[in-house]
Amino acid sequence: MFSFQGENILSVNQLDRDCIERIFAVAKKMEPYAKKQKRTNVLEGAILANLFFEPSTRTRVSFGTAFNLLGGLVRETTGMQSSALAKGESLYDTARVISAYADAVAMRHPDSGSVAEFATGCSVPVINGGDGPNEHPTQALLDLLTIERELIRFDQNIDGMHIALVGDLKYGRTVHSLSKLLCHYKDIKFSMVAPNGLQMPDSILSAVENAGHKIELVDKMEGNLAADIVYQTRIQEERFPSQEEANKYRGGFRISQSIYNTHCKPNSVLMHPLPRDSRLEANELDNDLNANDNLAIFRQVQNGVLIRMALFALTLGVENKVEQYEVSVPWFSRKRDS
Amino acid sequence: MFSFQGENILSVNQLDRDCIERIFAVAKKMEPYAKKQKRTNVLEGAILANLFFEPSTRTRVSFGTAFNLLGGLVRETTGMQSSALAKGESLYDTARVISAYADAVAMRHPDSGSVAEFATGCSVPVINGGDGPNEHPTQALLDLLTIERELIRFDQNIDGMHIALVGDLKYGRTVHSLSKLLCHYKDIKFSMVAPNGLQMPDSILSAVENAGHKIELVDKMEGNLAADIVYQTRIQEERFPSQEEANKYRGGFRISQSIYNTHCKPNSVLMHPLPRDSRLEANELDNDLNANDNLAIFRQVQNGVLIRMALFALTLGVENKVEQYEVSVPWFSRKRDS
Amino acid sequence: MFSFQGENILSVNQLDRDCIERIFAVAKKMEPYAKKQKRTNVLEGAILANLFFEPSTRTRVSFGTAFNLLGGLVRETTGMQSSALAKGESLYDTARVISAYADAVAMRHPDSGSVAEFATGCSVPVINGGDGPNEHPTQALLDLLTIERELIRFDQNIDGMHIALVGDLKYGRTVHSLSKLLCHYKDIKFSMVAPNGLQMPDSILSAVENAGHKIELVDKMEGNLAADIVYQTRIQEERFPSQEEANKYRGGFRISQSIYNTHCKPNSVLMHPLPRDSRLEANELDNDLNANDNLAIFRQVQNGVLIRMALFALTLGVENKVEQYEVSVPWFSRKRDS
Repeated sequence: MFSFQGENILSVNQLDRDCIERIFAVAKKMEPYAKKQKRTNVLEGAILANLFFEPSTRTRVSFGTAFNLLGGLVRETTGMQSSALAKGESLYDTARVISAYADAVAMRHPDSGSVAEFATGCSVPVINGGDGPNEHPTQALLDLLTIERELIRFDQNIDGMHIALVGDLKYGRTVHSLSKLLCHYKDIKFSMVAPNGLQMPDSILSAVENAGHKIELVDKMEGNLAADIVYQTRIQEERFPSQEEANKYRGGFRISQSIYNTHCKPNSVLMHPLPRDSRLEANELDNDLNANDNLAIFRQVQNGVLIRMALFALTLGVENKVEQYEVSVPWFSRKRDS
Repeated sequence: MFSFQGENILSVNQLDRDCIERIFAVAKKMEPYAKKQKRTNVLEGAILANLFFEPSTRTRVSFGTAFNLLGGLVRETTGMQSSALAKGESLYDTARVISAYADAVAMRHPDSGSVAEFATGCSVPVINGGDGPNEHPTQALLDLLTIERELIRFDQNIDGMHIALVGDLKYGRTVHSLSKLLCHYKDIKFSMVAPNGLQMPDSILSAVENAGHKIELVDKMEGNLAADIVYQTRIQEERFPSQEEANKYRGGFRISQSIYNTHCKPNSVLMHPLPRDSRLEANELDNDLNANDNLAIFRQVQNGVLIRMALFALTLGVENKVEQYEVSVPWFSRKRDS
Repeated sequence: MFSFQGENILSVNQLDRDCIERIFAVAKKMEPYAKKQKRTNVLEGAILANLFFEPSTRTRVSFGTAFNLLGGLVRETTGMQSSALAKGESLYDTARVISAYADAVAMRHPDSGSVAEFATGCSVPVINGGDGPNEHPTQALLDLLTIERELIRFDQNIDGMHIALVGDLKYGRTVHSLSKLLCHYKDIKFSMVAPNGLQMPDSILSAVENAGHKIELVDKMEGNLAADIVYQTRIQEERFPSQEEANKYRGGFRISQSIYNTHCKPNSVLMHPLPRDSRLEANELDNDLNANDNLAIFRQVQNGVLIRMALFALTLGVENKVEQYEVSVPWFSRKRDS
């Protein structure tokens, strides 16, 4: 059995179903702390090095918040211009240096494999916050946790569900990683809804098929959105193989409340990796969906905090000590439930 | 009666005299904590999202310090290039996301109305740290608190005082907001000392007049600085309606110790919204005033921390719990009183 | 006797041997806290203003970490573009403002003398984190502490040792400051190993000579590396007086394991101010030295945290209260000793 304590979390490939379920169990235990119903100081005095060599405000703040919610402090760096890496320092040297400062590292970097390379020199647990087009395991875990928690409202499970992955499935890192994690589950129907030329890569399709799941490859939303989970991703115009293709599909992957009413099931859950582009020319999720209870995109954000708290707690070996360091919350904590 | 708990502080227009006095009462209670004579952990475990989409080191650090002084932690973002907003995310979406991370938000943004728009999507209290040319309510409150505390040294009150507002009164956001707050007080004499073309806007003048105050509009300092409070603001050369006007007024609004001796009262208090430009070509407050006890500009900074502490305490509902979470200060806390 | 409490640490010239030994005694006491064998809250509630007007990720994070390890919080600023200094604010004004926020300041700035100028306006202790080409006292102290701790493994002392300073001794700020500190010790042999035109400045050579030390000035490593300490620094190609000189010396100051085997003593300790340039064209320390136990560069980093903790503890007067505020460490603290 995988012992999380002292380990790095670099890739979804490290995680089997047992690992995933242990992470989710800890994540759910974190919820009252994230909602400020309770507070814990279990990581008081611990320092997270939050190293964002590629900017990503949302992911950076989520990691920092998760560490703070466990009582720890955060030292941070953003961008690469002023870093020693820019002066020719190796990732190995940077890792040895950071090991003198921190108890845990969250790292984002534009290059594939960079976080794993860094981890070889680092003497504290490293969590991959995205290494270019390669991996972003906490996003995949928060997506999967969201699916589980959304479906349970309707007495459903991940096993046996129907999921529609929509949009740019070729370049979308999040749908690749999510598909890999879903290979540990059973009897899932995948509707891969992507324009011609932007379909899911064969390697992922094979893995999904070998896991015993059912796959439909389609190039339009009509008739293909009646899924339990509809996971929308952004299509950038320049990704199309030609301008003709772009013209052919323009507007064909945008979901509005009216599209939802016509093509989804009454309880289809809508997900998106965020940020969603709210500009009129964008091909994503319309603002008129904000009133739809099944729009789960902001619950994904909340689950992201829980997943990151769980990974810090597990890799630092405090997952069973959280309650012991509990303290009261004297302040008024919410205008309303977010 | 306005209940601060769970509310946003977006504009000086929200605040009547009762509100102001309650804020000031809490601010004064914060002083021993800001001076490190005492320490409190009342917000231990709370997280401030300090969102500075427009850079302002001073205001950003002041908000962060105020939250730290109550025992809370700070997650921060500066600039806009790397933010999701730059990728088309709506302020509403950003607010929903940040609501999953923070217990309070301080926000600066270059666009008028942006902070209020953000607040509609946010489930925790939002404090406006400046939305472009529109509002900067904590600056107005710290200015007003400074006036009150400076005058009390001479047994004077805001009611009945004489204030000279000097410099660019047309574009200076701080003098507009301060004037609005002063409308809740009585019998004030305003000397509006501004070059032709840079006088106070009519809307503000009307409000001040309707509050029963006395106004003098003048275009030179000579004979008009014998006020209890002299509030100086920066004039940028390019603001003048013409180069001729600029030439006519150049140097005419600069206050030095010798100008002070000639034109001010013996105890006229000098204020400025800071930063003051210390370069020779600047039109502001000379460095030879640093030895003048009535130069209150650095006391304004201290009062800014108190105001921000008070607003966090009030909106998070802990204004009466601060003492209960008091702890000792073991370190040597000052070389000298600042 | 120098009392650290409430003082600034601006220059190595402030420090005599007694000061140095007191700093080192406190630094060594800090080690179990830096290694997370223990934890202290002695500075809980204190705020460090970590002002890096010139970027330096490593030094910035080291100062911040040191303050966190004593239980304090950090407010930070990086770069100068968005600062009030860029709008003409004087260092004096900035210092008065920061005095309202912080209990201690660590500051880096590109201009010589700037940190000292800032300190004149600041009412809390200021530690110089590097003021351009001028001073970087915490680097010199961590270098000296490393030398002491490395030599003690072989029952040696700084008194009586042989040190080779290698590379660009003309422009290298660190070797100047280190040489000055070594003037407080006895009977040291210095091998100054630098290309023609990049030798140590006469002022430093005189000081070293006046302290009674022995100096050899040489321009090649061969025969001159059999020292107890070999302190390597970077040579930038553009520093050579001419291209001919550069060609003559190219590769002549690069230390690899094979050079080490041939020219060093069996236990020669290798040091470097970091970052080391790991690119092939660099003239520094090869990666094949990573397995060499006498490569002390990452222990220098660890000692840097201890020195900065010691200086904060001393200037804030808590050096004898650290144990009193000790708390337990509930988390798993290292994958391996770094």
